[in-house]
Amino acid sequence: MNVAIVGIPFDAGASYRPGARFGPAHVRQSSRLLRPYNPAADVSSFEKYQVADAGDIAVNPFDIGEALADIERASRELHERAERVISIGGDHTIALPLLRAMAAKHGPISVVHFDAHLDTWNTYFGARYTHGTPFRRASEEGLIDREGSMHVGVRGPLYSTKDLEDDADLGFEIFSTIELDDIGVKGAIEKIAERVGDRPMYVSVDIDVLDPAHAPGTGTPEAGGLTSRELLAILRSLRQRNFVGADVVEVSPVYDHAEITGIAAAHIIYELLGAM
Amino acid sequence: MNVAIVGIPFDAGASYRPGARFGPAHVRQSSRLLRPYNPAADVSSFEKYQVADAGDIAVNPFDIGEALADIERASRELHERAERVISIGGDHTIALPLLRAMAAKHGPISVVHFDAHLDTWNTYFGARYTHGTPFRRASEEGLIDREGSMHVGVRGPLYSTKDLEDDADLGFEIFSTIELDDIGVKGAIEKIAERVGDRPMYVSVDIDVLDPAHAPGTGTPEAGGLTSRELLAILRSLRQRNFVGADVVEVSPVYDHAEITGIAAAHIIYELLGAM
Amino acid sequence: MNVAIVGIPFDAGASYRPGARFGPAHVRQSSRLLRPYNPAADVSSFEKYQVADAGDIAVNPFDIGEALADIERASRELHERAERVISIGGDHTIALPLLRAMAAKHGPISVVHFDAHLDTWNTYFGARYTHGTPFRRASEEGLIDREGSMHVGVRGPLYSTKDLEDDADLGFEIFSTIELDDIGVKGAIEKIAERVGDRPMYVSVDIDVLDPAHAPGTGTPEAGGLTSRELLAILRSLRQRNFVGADVVEVSPVYDHAEITGIAAAHIIYELLGAM
Amino acid sequence: MNVAIVGIPFDAGASYRPGARFGPAHVRQSSRLLRPYNPAADVSSFEKYQVADAGDIAVNPFDIGEALADIERASRELHERAERVISIGGDHTIALPLLRAMAAKHGPISVVHFDAHLDTWNTYFGARYTHGTPFRRASEEGLIDREGSMHVGVRGPLYSTKDLEDDADLGFEIFSTIELDDIGVKGAIEKIAERVGDRPMYVSVDIDVLDPAHAPGTGTPEAGGLTSRELLAILRSLRQRNFVGADVVEVSPVYDHAEITGIAAAHIIYELLGAM
Amino acid sequence: MNVAIVGIPFDAGASYRPGARFGPAHVRQSSRLLRPYNPAADVSSFEKYQVADAGDIAVNPFDIGEALADIERASRELHERAERVISIGGDHTIALPLLRAMAAKHGPISVVHFDAHLDTWNTYFGARYTHGTPFRRASEEGLIDREGSMHVGVRGPLYSTKDLEDDADLGFEIFSTIELDDIGVKGAIEKIAERVGDRPMYVSVDIDVLDPAHAPGTGTPEAGGLTSRELLAILRSLRQRNFVGADVVEVSPVYDHAEITGIAAAHIIYELLGAM
Amino acid sequence: MNVAIVGIPFDAGASYRPGARFGPAHVRQSSRLLRPYNPAADVSSFEKYQVADAGDIAVNPFDIGEALADIERASRELHERAERVISIGGDHTIALPLLRAMAAKHGPISVVHFDAHLDTWNTYFGARYTHGTPFRRASEEGLIDREGSMHVGVRGPLYSTKDLEDDADLGFEIFSTIELDDIGVKGAIEKIAERVGDRPMYVSVDIDVLDPAHAPGTGTPEAGGLTSRELLAILRSLRQRNFVGADVVEVSPVYDHAEITGIAAAHIIYELLGAM
Repeated sequence: MNVAIVGIPFDAGASYRPGARFGPAHVRQSSRLLRPYNPAADVSSFEKYQVADAGDIAVNPFDIGEALADIERASRELHERAERVISIGGDHTIALPLLRAMAAKHGPISVVHFDAHLDTWNTYFGARYTHGTPFRRASEEGLIDREGSMHVGVRGPLYSTKDLEDDADLGFEIFSTIELDDIGVKGAIEKIAERVGDRPMYVSVDIDVLDPAHAPGTGTPEAGGLTSRELLAILRSLRQRNFVGADVVEVSPVYDHAEITGIAAAHIIYELLGAM
Repeated sequence: MNVAIVGIPFDAGASYRPGARFGPAHVRQSSRLLRPYNPAADVSSFEKYQVADAGDIAVNPFDIGEALADIERASRELHERAERVISIGGDHTIALPLLRAMAAKHGPISVVHFDAHLDTWNTYFGARYTHGTPFRRASEEGLIDREGSMHVGVRGPLYSTKDLEDDADLGFEIFSTIELDDIGVKGAIEKIAERVGDRPMYVSVDIDVLDPAHAPGTGTPEAGGLTSRELLAILRSLRQRNFVGADVVEVSPVYDHAEITGIAAAHIIYELLGAM
Repeated sequence: MNVAIVGIPFDAGASYRPGARFGPAHVRQSSRLLRPYNPAADVSSFEKYQVADAGDIAVNPFDIGEALADIERASRELHERAERVISIGGDHTIALPLLRAMAAKHGPISVVHFDAHLDTWNTYFGARYTHGTPFRRASEEGLIDREGSMHVGVRGPLYSTKDLEDDADLGFEIFSTIELDDIGVKGAIEKIAERVGDRPMYVSVDIDVLDPAHAPGTGTPEAGGLTSRELLAILRSLRQRNFVGADVVEVSPVYDHAEITGIAAAHIIYELLGAM
Repeated sequence: MNVAIVGIPFDAGASYRPGARFGPAHVRQSSRLLRPYNPAADVSSFEKYQVADAGDIAVNPFDIGEALADIERASRELHERAERVISIGGDHTIALPLLRAMAAKHGPISVVHFDAHLDTWNTYFGARYTHGTPFRRASEEGLIDREGSMHVGVRGPLYSTKDLEDDADLGFEIFSTIELDDIGVKGAIEKIAERVGDRPMYVSVDIDVLDPAHAPGTGTPEAGGLTSRELLAILRSLRQRNFVGADVVEVSPVYDHAEITGIAAAHIIYELLGAM
Repeated sequence: MNVAIVGIPFDAGASYRPGARFGPAHVRQSSRLLRPYNPAADVSSFEKYQVADAGDIAVNPFDIGEALADIERASRELHERAERVISIGGDHTIALPLLRAMAAKHGPISVVHFDAHLDTWNTYFGARYTHGTPFRRASEEGLIDREGSMHVGVRGPLYSTKDLEDDADLGFEIFSTIELDDIGVKGAIEKIAERVGDRPMYVSVDIDVLDPAHAPGTGTPEAGGLTSRELLAILRSLRQRNFVGADVVEVSPVYDHAEITGIAAAHIIYELLGAM
Repeated sequence: MNVAIVGIPFDAGASYRPGARFGPAHVRQSSRLLRPYNPAADVSSFEKYQVADAGDIAVNPFDIGEALADIERASRELHERAERVISIGGDHTIALPLLRAMAAKHGPISVVHFDAHLDTWNTYFGARYTHGTPFRRASEEGLIDREGSMHVGVRGPLYSTKDLEDDADLGFEIFSTIELDDIGVKGAIEKIAERVGDRPMYVSVDIDVLDPAHAPGTGTPEAGGLTSRELLAILRSLRQRNFVGADVVEVSPVYDHAEITGIAAAHIIYELLGAM
């Protein structure tokens, strides 16, 4: 098996609107219109690679610590059978055990993190493991390459300037939507190329990097986001990187309408596959 | 203060569709059409009693154990200031700390539990404290009067016959919708009167006791339930009991439509107030 | 023309959720599944009578006084061309000008008013003409027969006992849902027969007489209402009365789901036609 | 295999609101809350019988004639492997090929048909095979036992009295909602027992037999229908009959809300299983 | 009559989400906010031209072949009475009979086809006439000018590279969203001008050329599409062409929200009118 | 108090889809995700200023004249307590009394009006005070600076060329979406700077300036609008102006989905605060 796609129906780490536990089923259902040949990438991924749906990881919905252990264990096992893994969340908490499994295989890796938010907060209600903290924990645990990691699509209000300082200390560069307005999709692609180079790269896509118009079905929507066309164009460019794994998280179906968020997520995964 | 109404925005104990964390805000919003005089009970509750909105209890969304402690503590404090408390959930997990606080004041009490489900399961994913277990834990902890407690409106599939045996051992009598079909609302009222007598009575209303047509906005809907008219008639009769406290739980607004679940919950609380 | 059906797209009299201005279009659209033969009444209304859609009355949306005059004028004109008129609201304010036009033709008439609410309030924000006051104004103006009028389906909270006293003084008898629970649909039919006898009868159906489960698409829903089956059975019995006119009001499409409120309203009008 | 459950994602026979092609997936998804023990029937169906999900029948969406042949062929094959089959529609057109397969096995059988409509129309737009005609075609083809078949839950307008005459000629008795109002659920159960006796019985449930409040997610909703509690009680009684097969049709997910129609359908199938 | 607007409530050719049969009614309803003067085009279309709503073409919903014949016949008749016709679908299958009627009048014409998809597939389930095939059939039948036809807005996965080869052989040029990213709306306008020149031009707009954010109410949404502003700007430029007819198809109202798809379609038709 | 935020739950001036009366509650609810530090503006507004929620102004829903007087009076009182006021509508009618209060304090001021529509119509149904007329009335009453006022984001059909002439006479410059396509967000910012200079500036944002994809929850949506990212970028630039007050109007929650319109409005207010 070259690529495994696995669902992680977990949302106990969500601070606001829950529901991402039903994300994997929704994204799969929304993928029914996909077809095998990707003309933009000129690749028939399902011919070129063996791509398998590895089903869902059974996670404890009532204990975040146990759930993280469940996910890490299942992810490590999957890495033994598959060259690359694309995970479908679930809330963003799952990125931490996924990165633990990745780092066990690749060492510290470049994370290109598409999100409206930094997700490098420290604690919330005293909890260290929530969907707002995975990248702080990952950096603290030495899982990420601090020279090659970045956030893309960040926007909106923060708690204080310290959020930015901490984020920089943790090894992230920020490419905000304001910079996107300045230098466009092509600029974004260059920025990523510069930052990542040929390091092994993990891509984590929080669906709320898209504008709420394009992805209403999520927990913490933030106005002023990317269009799906912009995001797909950026992802398409990643085939030039050393792309070793990915996740797409925070699809909350009950807030979706006419599957538009699910369809966006399915296309995102399709482009990630094409870029791998 | 005679009656305090308090919200408990907690749903980390939900096994299926989450979202009851937004229940308190939704029920308050849906109460905007209520007026002061209850002609069915011939009482102007807000004149006769001092009824106060005590706001929401701040609960840890990431740790069920801490959340239960938060709720019990806040509930005990509220009991010092208010003669009676009506709590708005949140998922049904909250009934356990609420009953702990009630029992601290009243000793073991009769629980009249309106629900499609028994909520006396033992564990789920190994977790002892979830929205499927509060009444088993409450019985084990000696919080309920095993001679005067009952479920009303139960229906639908179970895991095994053992569910029924355990439930009886824990001190509950079951009044199912099949019995309701046989003896009607008046029969239900008599059954409750017989079972409860003049014991101190706590009423716990899981909104899913209503049919999904009447309460779509909930986590684990079960076909074949009560109409809102049936439930309101039964609740109206409770003024003849020694009514010491109540909760209304499992309103999940994102699954609601046109506030019909919220309005049902607001009317339920209004009748509970009238019956107190 | 024997029967004219006319829309009145007006909702400036609504105190809470507006939108009934789009009621006529919605009810027409929801009537597309109706067929010509009514087996319950054993009548093919469209063969027996000439039934015409008289379109919508153009009403000023910004001035309630002018709107009432617009409606009364158009309604009087319609009465010259049609033996009977069924009006589709619009909010319940429109009942007043409709009753003015009816009374000009028939003198004071029996009003059988299906509604969750009394609609005999006096003023709101100082305004005398709103959707909460038409039957007080109609009674004050001598438009209704004070010996033969009644409310059916009333329930829920009021402002004070004075609401009930005033309502009785204005000439209405109340048949509440609590009485419906006691004596059922057959009892309701008898009560109406006793009250109305062979007086000329006008039927005004506020769609919120139905339970919110059956009619979410309305402005001031009240839990504990009638099922559509109960209401249709009661309306079906009215053919034994001297039935001279009717309205169906307060359908607010934006709160409807899958046209269930519109379909209920269309079936109500169909039964009214069959009963005429 | 004792019981096979099979989906038939076909809706090209729908005359009004389409979408039942997605019914099977939706009902399966809505069945996730079912548990193994049915206390009302005191049976653990999945222990007692081998119940298998046979997947979906691949049907041509563009040619009704071919689709009927596809369904009949697949159904006959399934009957060779399973003692009993429960089919999930799809629109009601599918009942015809299903009955062809049933009759090939059992000869003419009693059909107990739950539906708001007769479905014994002749043609529509000249087409003989649509969702309004399966029971006329089935009777003409000698598939049904004309002494033991009936419609339950019929209501609403028809084209003419001839609809009723034809229906009787085709061998159906009608139990309407008006009769249900008169003699109740227990009366309905007796009527079915009288009509069916110990003949081999096939049950066809059009979800629109339920009131639109209980089943908004369907193509041709009709006000004044059954509650889910009434329907489940009637189905529960069928275990005393010689129950050989069933279908549940016309669930159209896009018109559903919060899965209430899907959940009703899942519970219906669960009761059918319990009654078999 | 200069321009006739006609509805074609047909969706039996839809392969995935149906419902476009209700498109014409929805688009008409969503056009209620349009006003007579188009400032962008500096034209008052309804003054300058006689624009008539020609109602809906009655189409057989159960037989695609008959439906195509119905549409072609009605369209030819309409062309005798109107100089230009704008058709509102319905699914894209209808483009074939519409082009047959166009070609009968104009000979092979340039088709500018706005769509996420090529719609030049060959067969599906063996069916030659579906919403995925009209432009292949039209080309095979010699209805289109193979030197002047093109697709605009194409994106997303295909079955294989052969799709692209066949499409080119059938006489279409592709302007994808990737090219749009490169050369923008102005580039698109130039490309169309180059390709079409002064040939008689027919414009076929599948609403799914818009991004799902802008047009959720359609059958086969594809992420990464055009904004409504981009599409309206391109259409506005078409007044410089020899514009002889148009259709707007695949609006499926039940998937729409707050009429945003309907409003987009109404504005599209309004710009088409302004450009004619 | 430096800045007061006040809700005005009024929509009796709406000509089409009502519901903006619930706008203030919805926008407040949608603001729950905002955090204190605005990195784009590098300001912690809630630290730098005292920002207070001044609650809602009680307005007569049945009499537009009285409502305007209510709003003006309350607004003047608020100006005595707060340096700046941001009002949340409500429909756009409220801009007139708000500008009366502003002009009483500042004299004629520059109005930068973001809207799909001009809102300088004269009368509708004979009414002079509706949501389509506030800026005509404001200009006639001398409330605006005719040299420094402009509309931004205007698009779509008008009644006639006279609309444009009148608008110019009333002192407005138009920056349409077509010009935005030409010169982009940076061009828009420059145009506003040129027009407004250092005059005291009032900003009125009709949420329908956004594309319906970004703001479905409004009364008169118009295709082809701004993205939320464009609007936020333009608003962010306004800190260089002499910014004295603002309103955000026409959020109609019942047409919203997943709070995307409410969230856009909350972010707009947040940027306005940052720019003040």
